Amino acid sequence: MSGPRKIVALSGGVGGAKLAFGLDRALPAGALSVIVNTGDDFTHLGLPISPDIDTLLYTLSGLNDTRRGWGRAGESWAFMETLRELGGEDWFQLGDRDLALHVLRGAMLASGQDLTQVTAALAARMGIAAKVLPMSDAPSPTLVETPDGALEFQRYFVEQRCAPVVTGLRHGAAAPSPAVLAALADPALAGIVICPSNPWLSIDPILALPGLSEALRASSAPVVAVSPLVGGQAVKGPTAKIMAELGLPVTNASIAAHYAGLIDGLVIDRADAGDAGALPLPVAVEETLMTDDARKIALAGRVLGFLDTLREGA
Amino acid sequence: MSGPRKIVALSGGVGGAKLAFGLDRALPAGALSVIVNTGDDFTHLGLPISPDIDTLLYTLSGLNDTRRGWGRAGESWAFMETLRELGGEDWFQLGDRDLALHVLRGAMLASGQDLTQVTAALAARMGIAAKVLPMSDAPSPTLVETPDGALEFQRYFVEQRCAPVVTGLRHGAAAPSPAVLAALADPALAGIVICPSNPWLSIDPILALPGLSEALRASSAPVVAVSPLVGGQAVKGPTAKIMAELGLPVTNASIAAHYAGLIDGLVIDRADAGDAGALPLPVAVEETLMTDDARKIALAGRVLGFLDTLREGA
Repeated sequence: MSGPRKIVALSGGVGGAKLAFGLDRALPAGALSVIVNTGDDFTHLGLPISPDIDTLLYTLSGLNDTRRGWGRAGESWAFMETLRELGGEDWFQLGDRDLALHVLRGAMLASGQDLTQVTAALAARMGIAAKVLPMSDAPSPTLVETPDGALEFQRYFVEQRCAPVVTGLRHGAAAPSPAVLAALADPALAGIVICPSNPWLSIDPILALPGLSEALRASSAPVVAVSPLVGGQAVKGPTAKIMAELGLPVTNASIAAHYAGLIDGLVIDRADAGDAGALPLPVAVEETLMTDDARKIALAGRVLGFLDTLREGA
Repeated sequence: MSGPRKIVALSGGVGGAKLAFGLDRALPAGALSVIVNTGDDFTHLGLPISPDIDTLLYTLSGLNDTRRGWGRAGESWAFMETLRELGGEDWFQLGDRDLALHVLRGAMLASGQDLTQVTAALAARMGIAAKVLPMSDAPSPTLVETPDGALEFQRYFVEQRCAPVVTGLRHGAAAPSPAVLAALADPALAGIVICPSNPWLSIDPILALPGLSEALRASSAPVVAVSPLVGGQAVKGPTAKIMAELGLPVTNASIAAHYAGLIDGLVIDRADAGDAGALPLPVAVEETLMTDDARKIALAGRVLGFLDTLREGA
């Protein structure tokens, strides 16, 4: 193809951000746009928190704490300690440095900028070349249905540590941001990657936005998903638990069925190579565990190659 | 007199808080109510900042930083450093621990509590026995008039470090809080102390509230002011500079004239003992420099004694 090819990734938090990091480093600067789930966003102590956007910003800028697995490296906790002493709500951890991002975001939103503009300004300030695109500029919260009623996402995920049984999920239906629709309609778009985030908790909130799935289907660029399963288990987080609670076999066949009609190919882990034959779509078998930066970049390279193959075959 | 006597103090920030600390320690627990200037309050980065209330809370709880002269002891600055890196406004210093107070106050106000309730809850949490009473539950901002136009108080005081010439002051006219009016109407009230805060910047915003000066005059309790001047100079802050800019001699005669009709006695420093004879009201000459806790408590004891004398003489 001619001209610089563009790639769009759809991502939730930690797992998705790892592949987004790999794609960003594997592609020319600025070729990547990441559409990020904001279904987990909430207002806490008056501050607008966007957990998945923050994870993307910290991961793409290299500021993330790789040992703890979330938040910023070199974080300190004086605010949190004092908040606890003063009797404030302390179930959601806010580091002193992380807090600057939330406070500044709040001030920028209050000044009339939308979440897309605010995120772009913060990303630029953090030296990030990729476009980090909130899926929507309007709230579109995910509600987790449990036998004891519906829970806001962070109450389920952080406060209750994913303990409640999930009987269903309710996604918001805000309009996708203009920047998201523009990225998906870009004539230079050469491929769309669904990152190995939790399909139900992190990717579905994006796909549920009116017109979003249609935009993916309408694109001439191939769409591939990277399975979040490795050896029939989720690498991290509650994917396998939720699949079981929703009555789904914890297999790549379930992942493929979930994305049926939307994706042109599925990347699965070597540990699940045996699944490949039974899957009703093109499959790439790769090392998907991204335990260091080199593996993130290597997997991104393989995914981009898979997209090339699908585009040439089309 | 019978029953526990109550004392009300009117206070601005640092200098006033020192005497309030002394009064709190010199009196039985809970006998002191401090009416605090909120004319300096402002919203910064979306957070409600109440500089004088915060100074009172930190000073009365013993958490204040005595070396720096403002804010909390043991403070850290990771938030501020990160805010600066992200391009946020950094002219107003917010320590990591101090921030917890502002964030929690914001959340409590947003939940529907008024500033009086919020301040009482925070004070209780910090182990403070005195009542810390914001002068009003509504914004009543002080504007500083300068040759280049009117400035919000914190812009004048912090950002411009009191450099602009003050040509006048405009005070808000919000209603005093019910708790403030109740404290001044309390039959057990034995004395009212105007702390050695800046009369123009810190005390006038309180006295300017509708009904406030009238409540002081209507009280049967004597009212004494402690002069902020020592040896014809202000101990700290722009009192002397502002007096000169407003065309007033920097003398205790100017302070007495400013409070004329409102106070029954003036406490002046030993260094200004020579002023006593020329002042048209009862004067107590004391050591007013409060360089350590013992001196704060000692001065408070003398002020309480002076109130007793005035009450007996009435």
